[in-house]
Amino acid sequence: MKYVDMSREQLLEQQEALKAEYSAFAAKGHKLDMSRGKPSPEQLELSAGLLDAVDSSTDFAAAAEVDVRNYGGLEGIEGARRILGHMMGIPASNVIALNNSSLKIMYDLVAHAMTHGIMGSTPWAKLDTVKFLCPSPGYDRHFSVCEHFGIEMVTVPMGEDGPDMDMIEELVSSDESVKGIWCVPQYSNPQGYVYSDETVARFAALKPAASDFRIFWDNAYVIHHLYEDHPTVANIKDACDAAGNPDIYYEFASTSKITFAGAGISGVGASDANIADIKKFIFFSMICPDKINQLRHAIFFAEEGSLEAHMRKHAGLIRPKFEMVEGILSEQIGELGIGTWTSPRGGYFICFDGLPGTAKRIVELAADAGVKMTGAGAMYPYKRDPEDKTIRIAPTYPSVEDLRNAAELFSICVKLASIEKLLEA
Amino acid sequence: MKYVDMSREQLLEQQEALKAEYSAFAAKGHKLDMSRGKPSPEQLELSAGLLDAVDSSTDFAAAAEVDVRNYGGLEGIEGARRILGHMMGIPASNVIALNNSSLKIMYDLVAHAMTHGIMGSTPWAKLDTVKFLCPSPGYDRHFSVCEHFGIEMVTVPMGEDGPDMDMIEELVSSDESVKGIWCVPQYSNPQGYVYSDETVARFAALKPAASDFRIFWDNAYVIHHLYEDHPTVANIKDACDAAGNPDIYYEFASTSKITFAGAGISGVGASDANIADIKKFIFFSMICPDKINQLRHAIFFAEEGSLEAHMRKHAGLIRPKFEMVEGILSEQIGELGIGTWTSPRGGYFICFDGLPGTAKRIVELAADAGVKMTGAGAMYPYKRDPEDKTIRIAPTYPSVEDLRNAAELFSICVKLASIEKLLEA
Repeated sequence: MKYVDMSREQLLEQQEALKAEYSAFAAKGHKLDMSRGKPSPEQLELSAGLLDAVDSSTDFAAAAEVDVRNYGGLEGIEGARRILGHMMGIPASNVIALNNSSLKIMYDLVAHAMTHGIMGSTPWAKLDTVKFLCPSPGYDRHFSVCEHFGIEMVTVPMGEDGPDMDMIEELVSSDESVKGIWCVPQYSNPQGYVYSDETVARFAALKPAASDFRIFWDNAYVIHHLYEDHPTVANIKDACDAAGNPDIYYEFASTSKITFAGAGISGVGASDANIADIKKFIFFSMICPDKINQLRHAIFFAEEGSLEAHMRKHAGLIRPKFEMVEGILSEQIGELGIGTWTSPRGGYFICFDGLPGTAKRIVELAADAGVKMTGAGAMYPYKRDPEDKTIRIAPTYPSVEDLRNAAELFSICVKLASIEKLLEA
Repeated sequence: MKYVDMSREQLLEQQEALKAEYSAFAAKGHKLDMSRGKPSPEQLELSAGLLDAVDSSTDFAAAAEVDVRNYGGLEGIEGARRILGHMMGIPASNVIALNNSSLKIMYDLVAHAMTHGIMGSTPWAKLDTVKFLCPSPGYDRHFSVCEHFGIEMVTVPMGEDGPDMDMIEELVSSDESVKGIWCVPQYSNPQGYVYSDETVARFAALKPAASDFRIFWDNAYVIHHLYEDHPTVANIKDACDAAGNPDIYYEFASTSKITFAGAGISGVGASDANIADIKKFIFFSMICPDKINQLRHAIFFAEEGSLEAHMRKHAGLIRPKFEMVEGILSEQIGELGIGTWTSPRGGYFICFDGLPGTAKRIVELAADAGVKMTGAGAMYPYKRDPEDKTIRIAPTYPSVEDLRNAAELFSICVKLASIEKLLEA
């Protein structure tokens, strides 16, 4: 029976029972965390071999085109550019391979555009208004970059095929202050949606009012499939080249959730002209990235198909966690009409939508009982979820046992918050 | 006999003999490089053990306060902060340990000041004029950062005790647009001078007109001694704290020339208030630095005194190179009155001053005969050496045999260029 169909008395009765369950859980003193998209220790173990890929016996004269231990090679070594290019479907020559954080590359590109513009355009800091389109719910750290630089964020609704392209086409073509859009096209954060071919084609065909408009194509989960049978986002480079729009995108990828979250490699893929523009400014900031770590990755993934085989091991570890959370949600609240959630085929998150006006309360209840969730609202620009209903669930890090407890408690919190909300009405 | 005392005929006679020597050298088809401060392959071998410090058998639960393989720890791990702090004479808690490039940290701090100011000051990009003082000859990559951001560079003369403090005190206290100064206080690049205690005390006691003035104290060679008997620069943190000026400096250090030039760790040391200000903005740019590489360094240098012992091995390899270059210069041109050079007790460079108007020609002659030198002028703001006389010699990278050839040829080029200049007069 749906909560909405229950009488006040029935709801109060449910509430009492739930409060008891909640208190019993809280009394156990759990400290569980479903807040961040972190690999579990077991996943990190999958890359133990990476740590042995380079050691004191390595023949550095033969290992790469330069001595990776010394200065030089601003754009990274060929082997690293090849891996990242392979992930993105972009030739190595169109990839710059850098250090461990793709977020840092995105931040640096925005920072550079603020002070210098892009390819000689007016520095964004000199403009009255700079806007980024933000498909939402989306990735909080993308939005934080905008907030940090005073870039106005325009929320664009997300659907299963990607963001609202009508709205994007309209805004991008009519407003010169729209300089960028954040996209996580394969397994969007937090829904796990995959942009459809039509969406990608429409992105590639955009006619921006601003010459320095860029699509920030953050392909963070490009090969992070949970199932063999999965959708695949179309290649943005090919689409943009075909549309005669080769410079409109920057694509990003990293091995943070492939090898080590704290010590992977990351890179940016782009057109020849963009790569030249980027190299010109990163020259001023450093002599070279950490090429030894790049070599580790090049060696660890030297064999064809090894990257994909490695990702299947990840899937083997985290697929059961996704399925367990979805199973518990179905079992606990599936029939109650108080929430829906996504069933991603890959990526790192499940997106939960509760009744309007319950998200903050759910997160608060969970926290008080020892389960940390991503802050409600974090998935929206300015941390403002207009309906206060979206919660991001990150199932990868906790152990199966912890995750079971966390998901059970989460379900209790959803029920409690929903009843509170319904009783208010 | 000094060239200046020679008759025209004597000079022409010398020139003829030198031209023959030069041609004979050029005919050998050498490709030698005394241009950049790179460690030699033998120096890189000294840190081979670093590559084995972390491997698949490492117990990550016990190795550091966090699992270095995963996300987290924006300011770096304790072990890395301790090493960098030890080098700088700053507590670990006042150090942020980041990735491989201290230049990148400096660049990011300037970039951030451009868009956000420092501790809430007006963003530098919003000011009509921003100036940095540039003790010169100095490090070309410092000057490039200024040039990139359109920061006006003011040349300050360098002496054996450091830069001209009278001039600095005057400019810093009277001109609010003076926002920074580049310093390499221990073994200055390129002279190898060590700032005197008085210089450091006067830096610490500066009374800047601008609240967001910072001393960029790039202590790149802080422990890079060639001799046991060496001068040591005073501790800038202690001096600034004592002078009641705790926020006036940022100090930088890295292991680029200790372990691997392309894969070391680096960090910034500063007051509590500066560290808080820096952490606040780097939060927006990344989740964490590469903590596995930090752990490698923490393990490799865990034993007290190991860092110093390691540096003595470097000195053992490069001191003979410095001494050979100085020896050849003395032998070849010591009596000719056409050049002087520094005799550093540490660092990576020897600074050569030829007759005014000869530096470009010397570098050109050397290049044409197969010996690459740092571009003449590079050690000055805007690459403009006012007297065209300074050349940076980087003796570390070439083999002893190559270096001998390069130094011999360099001496020939100095003599040739000097004679050309004297014959012009």
